[in-house]
Amino acid sequence: MEITLKTTRRVEIIDITGEVEKCIDGGDLAVVYTPHTTTSVVINEGESGLLEDILEFMEKLVPFGKGYKHDRIDSNADAHLKATILGNSVVIPIENGRLALGTWQSILFVEFDGPRTRRVVVKTI
Amino acid sequence: MEITLKTTRRVEIIDITGEVEKCIDGGDLAVVYTPHTTTSVVINEGESGLLEDILEFMEKLVPFGKGYKHDRIDSNADAHLKATILGNSVVIPIENGRLALGTWQSILFVEFDGPRTRRVVVKTI
Amino acid sequence: MEITLKTTRRVEIIDITGEVEKCIDGGDLAVVYTPHTTTSVVINEGESGLLEDILEFMEKLVPFGKGYKHDRIDSNADAHLKATILGNSVVIPIENGRLALGTWQSILFVEFDGPRTRRVVVKTI
Repeated sequence: MEITLKTTRRVEIIDITGEVEKCIDGGDLAVVYTPHTTTSVVINEGESGLLEDILEFMEKLVPFGKGYKHDRIDSNADAHLKATILGNSVVIPIENGRLALGTWQSILFVEFDGPRTRRVVVKTI
Repeated sequence: MEITLKTTRRVEIIDITGEVEKCIDGGDLAVVYTPHTTTSVVINEGESGLLEDILEFMEKLVPFGKGYKHDRIDSNADAHLKATILGNSVVIPIENGRLALGTWQSILFVEFDGPRTRRVVVKTI
Repeated sequence: MEITLKTTRRVEIIDITGEVEKCIDGGDLAVVYTPHTTTSVVINEGESGLLEDILEFMEKLVPFGKGYKHDRIDSNADAHLKATILGNSVVIPIENGRLALGTWQSILFVEFDGPRTRRVVVKTI
């Protein structure tokens, strides 16, 4: 199954836990996968201050437009680097037909080169 | 199946390879998943010097208490950021009923906000 | 199934998308896993400038030979740290017998301690 998102800023985190849960009906393992090269999917707490911390940390780690080679083609090398570090998928065990997320865990979609329309694939094994 | 760990320091790495192996009985793929938001699971060499290098590197990369927004709620934003970077699960192929780990590979549980009692879920597909 | 690679430099990225595709014949999920502790597998765009950006960024993030403890045993602690950050596997949904990679996604093998002969395991679930 697939989720479609419209991001509204250059960098942004959207909590997609509820939307992913709607895609689960049994199985043993859920894979949440983004088919883009400038977005990530991670699991952590969905607290608003922390989401800002993650975006600020990643911006400091890989600043926009610092003479990357890929910027000669498309001015988003930083977004590719950020996405490479955080990864483009997560796996989550399913127990009794539901995602076995921990108490504080949310599934977070991370946009690094928005605003755009984005896709997330949810596969149940 | 599930492994319970008692960590004894704020940051600490525990080699859980042997405990994970005890959970495997056939299947094609093992998923090792921590349901917490301030711990990680990674695969690398379990050499004691390297484990210290990993913890020191992560501390330098994301220092404790540097004015993160999440610290207004709970003084562990650095731990959430570290866990987000390293990830909360690994997948390992199973061959002939055993984990197909490489010669130098160990499964490492990483505590970033201890000491606490922690859980690791091992799921076989 | 397994892919064998001969890397030719200390650090190097090889696009293995075509070789992984040859290993896929049905199933729901592909796991691409490297059994080494100084190599990674990631998914991103295979553009040559970006591949250089990734290697340069990782070298700046974790410079070679900076007094790491593991270097007392084997002078490649930086390579272990880099591999730990980027991870040693990716998962990719399979649709209609083919990898459901996005338009710009390639499967990238990352060498951090070459040149060596390296293995990549491809498992279909």
